[in-house]
Amino acid sequence: MTRFHAPDPFDSRGWRNRSFVVVFGHHTFAGRAFDVGLIVAIMASVAVALADSIAPVHARYGRLFYALEWGFTLMFTAEYLFRLMIVRHPVRYARSFYGVIDLLALLPTYLSLLVPGAHYLAVLRVLRILRIFEVLHLRRYTRATSILLDSLQNSWRKILVFLLAMLAIVTIFGAVIFLVEGPENGFTSIPLSMYWALVSVSTVGFGDLAPATPLGRMVASVLILIGYGIIAVPTGIYTAELATSLRTRRDARTCEACGLVGHEPDAGHCRRCGHALPEAGG
Amino acid sequence: MTRFHAPDPFDSRGWRNRSFVVVFGHHTFAGRAFDVGLIVAIMASVAVALADSIAPVHARYGRLFYALEWGFTLMFTAEYLFRLMIVRHPVRYARSFYGVIDLLALLPTYLSLLVPGAHYLAVLRVLRILRIFEVLHLRRYTRATSILLDSLQNSWRKILVFLLAMLAIVTIFGAVIFLVEGPENGFTSIPLSMYWALVSVSTVGFGDLAPATPLGRMVASVLILIGYGIIAVPTGIYTAELATSLRTRRDARTCEACGLVGHEPDAGHCRRCGHALPEAGG
Amino acid sequence: MTRFHAPDPFDSRGWRNRSFVVVFGHHTFAGRAFDVGLIVAIMASVAVALADSIAPVHARYGRLFYALEWGFTLMFTAEYLFRLMIVRHPVRYARSFYGVIDLLALLPTYLSLLVPGAHYLAVLRVLRILRIFEVLHLRRYTRATSILLDSLQNSWRKILVFLLAMLAIVTIFGAVIFLVEGPENGFTSIPLSMYWALVSVSTVGFGDLAPATPLGRMVASVLILIGYGIIAVPTGIYTAELATSLRTRRDARTCEACGLVGHEPDAGHCRRCGHALPEAGG
Amino acid sequence: MTRFHAPDPFDSRGWRNRSFVVVFGHHTFAGRAFDVGLIVAIMASVAVALADSIAPVHARYGRLFYALEWGFTLMFTAEYLFRLMIVRHPVRYARSFYGVIDLLALLPTYLSLLVPGAHYLAVLRVLRILRIFEVLHLRRYTRATSILLDSLQNSWRKILVFLLAMLAIVTIFGAVIFLVEGPENGFTSIPLSMYWALVSVSTVGFGDLAPATPLGRMVASVLILIGYGIIAVPTGIYTAELATSLRTRRDARTCEACGLVGHEPDAGHCRRCGHALPEAGG
Repeated sequence: MTRFHAPDPFDSRGWRNRSFVVVFGHHTFAGRAFDVGLIVAIMASVAVALADSIAPVHARYGRLFYALEWGFTLMFTAEYLFRLMIVRHPVRYARSFYGVIDLLALLPTYLSLLVPGAHYLAVLRVLRILRIFEVLHLRRYTRATSILLDSLQNSWRKILVFLLAMLAIVTIFGAVIFLVEGPENGFTSIPLSMYWALVSVSTVGFGDLAPATPLGRMVASVLILIGYGIIAVPTGIYTAELATSLRTRRDARTCEACGLVGHEPDAGHCRRCGHALPEAGG
Repeated sequence: MTRFHAPDPFDSRGWRNRSFVVVFGHHTFAGRAFDVGLIVAIMASVAVALADSIAPVHARYGRLFYALEWGFTLMFTAEYLFRLMIVRHPVRYARSFYGVIDLLALLPTYLSLLVPGAHYLAVLRVLRILRIFEVLHLRRYTRATSILLDSLQNSWRKILVFLLAMLAIVTIFGAVIFLVEGPENGFTSIPLSMYWALVSVSTVGFGDLAPATPLGRMVASVLILIGYGIIAVPTGIYTAELATSLRTRRDARTCEACGLVGHEPDAGHCRRCGHALPEAGG
Repeated sequence: MTRFHAPDPFDSRGWRNRSFVVVFGHHTFAGRAFDVGLIVAIMASVAVALADSIAPVHARYGRLFYALEWGFTLMFTAEYLFRLMIVRHPVRYARSFYGVIDLLALLPTYLSLLVPGAHYLAVLRVLRILRIFEVLHLRRYTRATSILLDSLQNSWRKILVFLLAMLAIVTIFGAVIFLVEGPENGFTSIPLSMYWALVSVSTVGFGDLAPATPLGRMVASVLILIGYGIIAVPTGIYTAELATSLRTRRDARTCEACGLVGHEPDAGHCRRCGHALPEAGG
Repeated sequence: MTRFHAPDPFDSRGWRNRSFVVVFGHHTFAGRAFDVGLIVAIMASVAVALADSIAPVHARYGRLFYALEWGFTLMFTAEYLFRLMIVRHPVRYARSFYGVIDLLALLPTYLSLLVPGAHYLAVLRVLRILRIFEVLHLRRYTRATSILLDSLQNSWRKILVFLLAMLAIVTIFGAVIFLVEGPENGFTSIPLSMYWALVSVSTVGFGDLAPATPLGRMVASVLILIGYGIIAVPTGIYTAELATSLRTRRDARTCEACGLVGHEPDAGHCRRCGHALPEAGG
């Protein structure tokens, strides 16, 4: 990902290039130190937001937390501007996945000047920690992540169809339970009843609302059975895609002698004819 | 689906044919405008039903909503009659999936003249929105939908067997918990206890009813373990079917001798007639 | 299943043989009439037990229900004794799956003479309805059932290992939450806390017990994450077995020319060499 | 596992060797008797801890339980020291899976001298019962266990990525619901709200906390839909790995040239060296 932001390669001794290696790179000592320091700072700033939300702690350390939060925010703002400055294509960085998250993580504190309480959204900074996989050179993790995301990408269309069908179920059952139970049992409107239907069909079942009449309980039973039947669907979609992903990642090579495809990743010879296989690419 | 309703093909300039292209077709500008307008109207009518069910909103805008609802209903009635009129085989349309839904979506408002409150069931109109997949030419969505439905169709027999087994479990545990806990802990009858057993075995767990005696809790634990063990069953059924669907769909080659499609990726010969197949493309 | 109970085949006109065809067979008109009548009687007797458990209904029709229940019980007792009489190997029938269920379904009513309330267990009769699959000649259902049961049989060992592991988790977390929350928050003993842990780890979550201290909530969070991670295990076990079952049912044949195994069920020719395949067996 | 701890093989008649066969072995009569006695003692000591935690039982039998618990602990301590003494490599045993558990199971009672209540953690002894699989020669169980653990080991990296993503979701939704609902509806801090978000997204849904405002319910609905969508992920990961495990384990043939085991069922040649394989047996 960092390769898209490489600064001028012909000026490798300039301060921008040297800064780039530290801020965006993970291979030098200074680069790793910067990464670790950044992640510690992010974690600390999230911890401040969490602690500040606890009333007794806020009462005691509120002013300290306020100062800390602005300190972190100004620091991260400086870091963000610095990244924009040293990168070769600032717009491309600003629009990349990490660039957007870096910006989003800054806004809540500034927003809190206008909207009190907005600074709690500074917990969005947790998303910056996802960078940890890149920092720690955990190639196997990024490979695992990419398999997961590939499968999600292949199956999102089916999952969207499924979610729309579920929205229809929730709307219809919400209206039916509203008619059957009515406001006297807590189902005061169809939107509220739809919330109940969603909570039920997804097997969450808070129990803040529950049918109290025999007929309402029969409706709930039918809804639960439907939910029980269709909870299989997203799992099935995703599992089938993932199984395909895992299989096709193994099956890239073709035997040059007999044309068999579908070799295991450690195979050096075709299992049908014994001819030597090309090297596994990855 | 629309091909079943094509009007007289030899009279392509008659008003029925021109109307058909607009009302049932999705390829002309007028046809797409009609589709979009219809979907907007459906969404608006569902939104009216939802908003009307909220007591304070109803108190304020109830008369407006009443007028709007009848307006939508009359409009959709006219549309339904018009569809019947311009289609070549009205009965075939009326009995098709969309035809039945179009009719069902009209009835609640008329029914509310006899049964107060029935007009809330006008939310059934959400089902008409499923047409959106056809409107937007989302062939990939309809393909995704058809894979999902194929797998459901292949596995519904197994799921039915499973549901009957679960009904037996729910009945037996309902009777046992009724005996163990009894009316003094809220389990006032076996049907109510069966409702609790279903809520528990499906992992919904509202908590409006919960066992209060040690023995009742042991019964509940056994029931939960059973539920935990068998929640795997519908998922397993569906996933296995879906994986088979995805696998058998993968190959696009056609046998030149007998025309069979759907060969396995490593097939060199047609499995029906034995004729050599073209190379697998990808 | 009925073949194990065939009476004397050399006396095909004797009353035992004729009765056997009616009571155990499903192919003659009289046999089917007997089956349908039996299933209706079973359903009616279960419905009586359910209705009798509702206090207001019991108050009004209790005496009628009492008479009906004894009527059904005596009738089913006569049927059971008659089955024992006409079958060739009474002991073998009595120890078969259906024989045990037929007996179990009788006992609760007699038991209620000693233990009041036991007659509600007459709902065990629902298990007799499973016979419906045999009655209706639903071969495809019994095939679906046998696939499901085969997979369960293959995977029960793994599921047992899994359940023992879960028991250990539940015991340990039950002790920890008992120490952390204690009786003042409702966790009055370790067995009760184990019940809470099971309800939580299985994602049922009644909410009759819930941690109230920050530390207890952290323990609960860890337990939920574990539960979320391992809910995959039984599903995975069962799905993998079922997928194998479905696959191996298709893959029985071997090509006589090149030895390839793993043909699709409708294949007439080997997909590798094109040689004709033997007929698919089943 | 026991093979790592074999004592001096050249002194097979010494007391250490004879004790080793009894304490670590499962093949002699004395060895099996020791195993069974040990498991009974473990179960009894766990049962004592469970019973002692019930207040009325504790009031009555507390002193007896106290004596029993110390009795069990001293006995298990003696057993642990004896194991260390007779094993060839005491450190290797002490650091093995069973060695660590054997030690952990002792500590709580001693710890209770310092920290009152810690003796309830003696339920950790349930983990020692896992040894039962080895005792009963249940090779098929250990094989089942090893398949389950292999799949977990192959998929833990993906599951860790997934858990980190879920932590981010829980943190962000916790902050949002805290802002929307606030302390007046019970959401008194972000950490508490994160606990609620975890309980909701995992479909546990205790209901001790539940949103009470329309906006909060919309946030909850989005969170539930996300949870419903991603509950598929760990199941999918694990199922796909398990299916691969089951598939790759199926073939028992060994290459005569290079000794590689684990060939695909249709392989005719070793995939490592290309040597012809023996016919697949079954």
